Amino acid sequence: MKWTQIDVSTGSRTQLVEITGAVADEVGKSGVASGTCHVYVPHTTAGLTINENADPDVARDILADLARLVPAGGDYRHAEGNSDAHVKATLVGFSAMVPVIDGRPALGTWQGVFLCEFDGPRRRRVLVGVAGE
Amino acid sequence: MKWTQIDVSTGSRTQLVEITGAVADEVGKSGVASGTCHVYVPHTTAGLTINENADPDVARDILADLARLVPAGGDYRHAEGNSDAHVKATLVGFSAMVPVIDGRPALGTWQGVFLCEFDGPRRRRVLVGVAGE
Amino acid sequence: MKWTQIDVSTGSRTQLVEITGAVADEVGKSGVASGTCHVYVPHTTAGLTINENADPDVARDILADLARLVPAGGDYRHAEGNSDAHVKATLVGFSAMVPVIDGRPALGTWQGVFLCEFDGPRRRRVLVGVAGE
Repeated sequence: MKWTQIDVSTGSRTQLVEITGAVADEVGKSGVASGTCHVYVPHTTAGLTINENADPDVARDILADLARLVPAGGDYRHAEGNSDAHVKATLVGFSAMVPVIDGRPALGTWQGVFLCEFDGPRRRRVLVGVAGE
Repeated sequence: MKWTQIDVSTGSRTQLVEITGAVADEVGKSGVASGTCHVYVPHTTAGLTINENADPDVARDILADLARLVPAGGDYRHAEGNSDAHVKATLVGFSAMVPVIDGRPALGTWQGVFLCEFDGPRRRRVLVGVAGE
Repeated sequence: MKWTQIDVSTGSRTQLVEITGAVADEVGKSGVASGTCHVYVPHTTAGLTINENADPDVARDILADLARLVPAGGDYRHAEGNSDAHVKATLVGFSAMVPVIDGRPALGTWQGVFLCEFDGPRRRRVLVGVAGE
């Protein structure tokens, strides 16, 4: 199994950046017909999620709701003042698994894979690995 | 590694539907003695979780608390009006991994695997794949 | 693929206990150079997350924010009175995947792996398995 790094530059403090194309490219390059594609973010103020990529308002609503649930500038002790980003990342998670079937990521019709930036803008790294036969 | 589709019909807008039996069946059919069982939901308004399957009030409490945290009819832009379901799915996640040990899913004593319906009733698909030896 | 059990004793009702060292030990013992390390908690009131292990205030802020979002003694039906712990566990999740690259867990500079105790103090079990070549 080989891991490849994808570099993503985010443009604002909070942003959902779709990386579905890059993930699908890695699945194709792997030559794996049936298996699992694992995506991982080696950061602590960014995460990963899967959700609708057809209507951009869905990503907007997810970010707005996370900001409502975990407001910036809450009663935090962490000196860097970005604890909201750490909490949001723990809520969405740092990895995603997508089944690989017939050599392609078996995403649902409306699903896309998104890097969740919670403390940008920054340069982020995403690791993609494909296992199987 | 082989992926199998499980079809689940949900009966209300929000519901936790236990699929532990179907997951265990796939582990048994796979012949894998030691490995990983991956469960995936190819939807954007349904998710997956693991939690207690002994007292049904636990599932009820999880759904009630998610509804309190992410109320339907919040300040959303997504025209379909089901953004609460998209947000809840991102919070619980779209996949679950269960260890396979001695040919069986190594779930804890009280653990069950649940499809999380957040915008039903609908017919949902769940993909189950088992990797290992 | 071999699964190993790690025993963790927690010291308070809610606590983030870092288990990064034990996870790294299992990766080393596995002899896997490139693959995936899967960590799993077979409980329903404890979970797993990855986050910053440099400043302990981050773990404190995550626990405090989860307690604000999902207060103990909410309007729950589950007779054991620990539904907040079940909900928190579903929010953070019961498993974590860490890439294995060059024989080591490819955690980010600031990342650590944490058992999330939400209904302690208790003795908890964590399963760690490494797949790959």
